[in-house]
Amino acid sequence: MTPVLYDLCGIDERLRFSPYCWRVRYALAHKGLGVETRPWRFTDKEALAFADTDKVPVLVDGDETVTDSYDILRYLDRAYPEAPLLGEGEAEARARFFKHYAERALAPAILRTIVMDLFNAIHPDDRAYFRESREARLGRSLEEFHSPAKGLSQLDAALAPLRGRLEEADFLDGDAPGGADYLVFGFFMWAHCVSSADLISNADPVYAWRERMLDLHDGLGREATRVTDIEGAYR
Amino acid sequence: MTPVLYDLCGIDERLRFSPYCWRVRYALAHKGLGVETRPWRFTDKEALAFADTDKVPVLVDGDETVTDSYDILRYLDRAYPEAPLLGEGEAEARARFFKHYAERALAPAILRTIVMDLFNAIHPDDRAYFRESREARLGRSLEEFHSPAKGLSQLDAALAPLRGRLEEADFLDGDAPGGADYLVFGFFMWAHCVSSADLISNADPVYAWRERMLDLHDGLGREATRVTDIEGAYR
Repeated sequence: MTPVLYDLCGIDERLRFSPYCWRVRYALAHKGLGVETRPWRFTDKEALAFADTDKVPVLVDGDETVTDSYDILRYLDRAYPEAPLLGEGEAEARARFFKHYAERALAPAILRTIVMDLFNAIHPDDRAYFRESREARLGRSLEEFHSPAKGLSQLDAALAPLRGRLEEADFLDGDAPGGADYLVFGFFMWAHCVSSADLISNADPVYAWRERMLDLHDGLGREATRVTDIEGAYR
Repeated sequence: MTPVLYDLCGIDERLRFSPYCWRVRYALAHKGLGVETRPWRFTDKEALAFADTDKVPVLVDGDETVTDSYDILRYLDRAYPEAPLLGEGEAEARARFFKHYAERALAPAILRTIVMDLFNAIHPDDRAYFRESREARLGRSLEEFHSPAKGLSQLDAALAPLRGRLEEADFLDGDAPGGADYLVFGFFMWAHCVSSADLISNADPVYAWRERMLDLHDGLGREATRVTDIEGAYR
């Protein structure tokens, strides 16, 4: 039975931009598993009540229901041991650092750059919820937080270790992509889907890595619908 | 035969502050190996000619001579496979990210905060060399680069992923310290030995980790000579 993934969508059902759901999409492809995605919107909390959560990703795989992107990767390693994503022992302990690096260093810098593009990509019925919940977290309005100049400068600093690693290897996990790559790359898919902002110079080793990641698994990221593909997305 | 480590010293032979040498000191202790350190100064290039390098650390272990802190950790894992530091496969690939994170995100922020303390800790005969080589790299004078306000703000941002990880685990490598911890901690020993600057608030999970790291291996870091232990260090 094909696993089912509840996947955040925006103004159009084809627009899937959750960084956490993208981690899972890449992880499933890494394991050679198919997926049936169910488009889900921020305010549709009832649809997830069966999983005792109010957030995606939610993965339903046969009798198993798993929430939280990192826990889903752990689950996939247990259920499908071939081609480990996170691995065990020190490999897994170190993978967790990539999760925090992506969520705490990259995500805030990217958000600051693209937050108004992101807001525009969200379904109109979800925007009040998004604004209210994010403004409470940020402690200011989306418009006040939005600053591509500050975001890009913050991102430039945050990318330093990624740059160092990608100067010496094609992927964070070495010659081939693995869990560390997916944990980080989800946030680049987020930006890629909702914004046309140039986050990285094409002379940056991170740029070439992002291109390689977009091409992986038969162009999984490359073929994703972007906001620029949607007619009337910009009003 | 006890391994020999060429180890950078400052105004006093007991003052050992190289972040790269501290990585190796901790790695040797992790393996349960003793060490005989040879104090070395920046300008004593001839003393390292036998190893075909002009930088410490240099480890001489029987017939083996190894340079570069990361390569020394790799060597120790090969020669002494018990209690792996970096491990193999994905564990090792991920360890490299900690090296880059420490060197490219933490080190510049710490340096900006403590560079004049560091300069003061360096042997007077080495200072012209240090100033010239670092100013060429920084593109400005040490005094222009020095900015505790900017350095601490940069460090606060750079610490975000470390903080995330240390909120959930005692060490970067999990329940017990490993190579990832040592790769990062070397830079905290650097600051600890040459400066009394408060880099981290005591409410920060990174602070508690640093305390644990100082205590490890019979107080290896805790017992290190600091510039504040040296009479007449501040003129």
